[in-house]
Amino acid sequence: MINPVETSIRVRYAETDGQGVVHHGNYMTYFELGRIEHLRANGMVYSEFEANGHFLVVANVECKYLAPVRFDDELILRTNLVDHSRVKLVHTYQVLRDERIMTEAKTTIVCVDREGKVTRLPEKLIC
Amino acid sequence: MINPVETSIRVRYAETDGQGVVHHGNYMTYFELGRIEHLRANGMVYSEFEANGHFLVVANVECKYLAPVRFDDELILRTNLVDHSRVKLVHTYQVLRDERIMTEAKTTIVCVDREGKVTRLPEKLIC
Amino acid sequence: MINPVETSIRVRYAETDGQGVVHHGNYMTYFELGRIEHLRANGMVYSEFEANGHFLVVANVECKYLAPVRFDDELILRTNLVDHSRVKLVHTYQVLRDERIMTEAKTTIVCVDREGKVTRLPEKLIC
Amino acid sequence: MINPVETSIRVRYAETDGQGVVHHGNYMTYFELGRIEHLRANGMVYSEFEANGHFLVVANVECKYLAPVRFDDELILRTNLVDHSRVKLVHTYQVLRDERIMTEAKTTIVCVDREGKVTRLPEKLIC
Repeated sequence: MINPVETSIRVRYAETDGQGVVHHGNYMTYFELGRIEHLRANGMVYSEFEANGHFLVVANVECKYLAPVRFDDELILRTNLVDHSRVKLVHTYQVLRDERIMTEAKTTIVCVDREGKVTRLPEKLIC
Repeated sequence: MINPVETSIRVRYAETDGQGVVHHGNYMTYFELGRIEHLRANGMVYSEFEANGHFLVVANVECKYLAPVRFDDELILRTNLVDHSRVKLVHTYQVLRDERIMTEAKTTIVCVDREGKVTRLPEKLIC
Repeated sequence: MINPVETSIRVRYAETDGQGVVHHGNYMTYFELGRIEHLRANGMVYSEFEANGHFLVVANVECKYLAPVRFDDELILRTNLVDHSRVKLVHTYQVLRDERIMTEAKTTIVCVDREGKVTRLPEKLIC
Repeated sequence: MINPVETSIRVRYAETDGQGVVHHGNYMTYFELGRIEHLRANGMVYSEFEANGHFLVVANVECKYLAPVRFDDELILRTNLVDHSRVKLVHTYQVLRDERIMTEAKTTIVCVDREGKVTRLPEKLIC
């Protein structure tokens, strides 16, 4: 497995808020992007899981904002799958700018079916 | 029919961008809110249309940004259904702050089915 | 001090994602709204802090997503200031729908000046 | 001048809404991205304009949504500067997927100073 996976992100203007920095909520979108690219780097396409009725959802998130990032900043998002079982995936994330860690986070992902009921993760994910 | 319908909106911090004003894209969310409340004021709940397989989608939008609005501003959104046929609804919008028009817009809405094919509007909408 | 403070939120369509539920990142916007209204309920207007060069920023967040919420859901956000010192505020949040807790979170807020340097909180906030 | 400028965009999950397609408001963010990259392709960095007190703002937008795009779609955004004077820039946009035009738009951009007053465009932009 390729792990961690690094993804380049350039900050969009719309992602900033009135303080001129990326709004803290928008990092959740970055981390999601990191998970998608982590899957892709390992030969999986997330939309195929949904097509088969497996929906990955965030069960919890912890995020530490160490320093702000700004419009047009070129960031590296490092996504690391640090733990997994039959029912959950745990990722950690680092957002770096010029090799400095700006933000750190951790998420737990679970899988739900079309009815929203928590299920086991698809086999492909946990091999 | 109650028309126009006025909706109060208080600007959220996350809706502002690095210029300290509401990002121009976020007005689309305001107008959508206006249409939802226009329906509600006239006895209709949008989610019921979707439950019945009728999805209202924006076919086009024109928007004039006359003056910026800021965090915590108290706005009035005036949503006006100005034209409708069996296949489309045309709304105009005014965003007002202290009775001054800050933004004006117009949208055309059409209806698609679960497969995304354009269909006639639900009867209830065009009576 | 009025604490906790309850804020009504009706889910906007744009806040949902392809799973038909509120995107997990959008809760950060809800919590921010809760803090703004917590201040207002206690006689403070956040924009005045910024006008005086005090910018409140999120230093960390922990969020547990217990159950999804959907378009048009009427939510109660309960914002509770649970701890504060000269340099930080700690809030907890509960998002409720029909008295059921759907999401729980905790944030730590610090204050930065115009240059982004961490400073003491404004006196008014910690009295 | 390099014109039009093509930008690759891969649709993020958070950009979709409850209909499973990109929310119509998010295209505004795509077009903004197109303008930023149009400037960059022509040797200009938008943040430098702001550093010098020139803020480009959208005065109006017209957008036609021809067909929906979905999570993970790989899009080409074609940004074309079609007209400019001392006070405004007019761009057109095409969002393409597999060479099919999914969305078309046109914006007018003006320049404001730090006080929000409309000014002439920076010289560099109109040469």
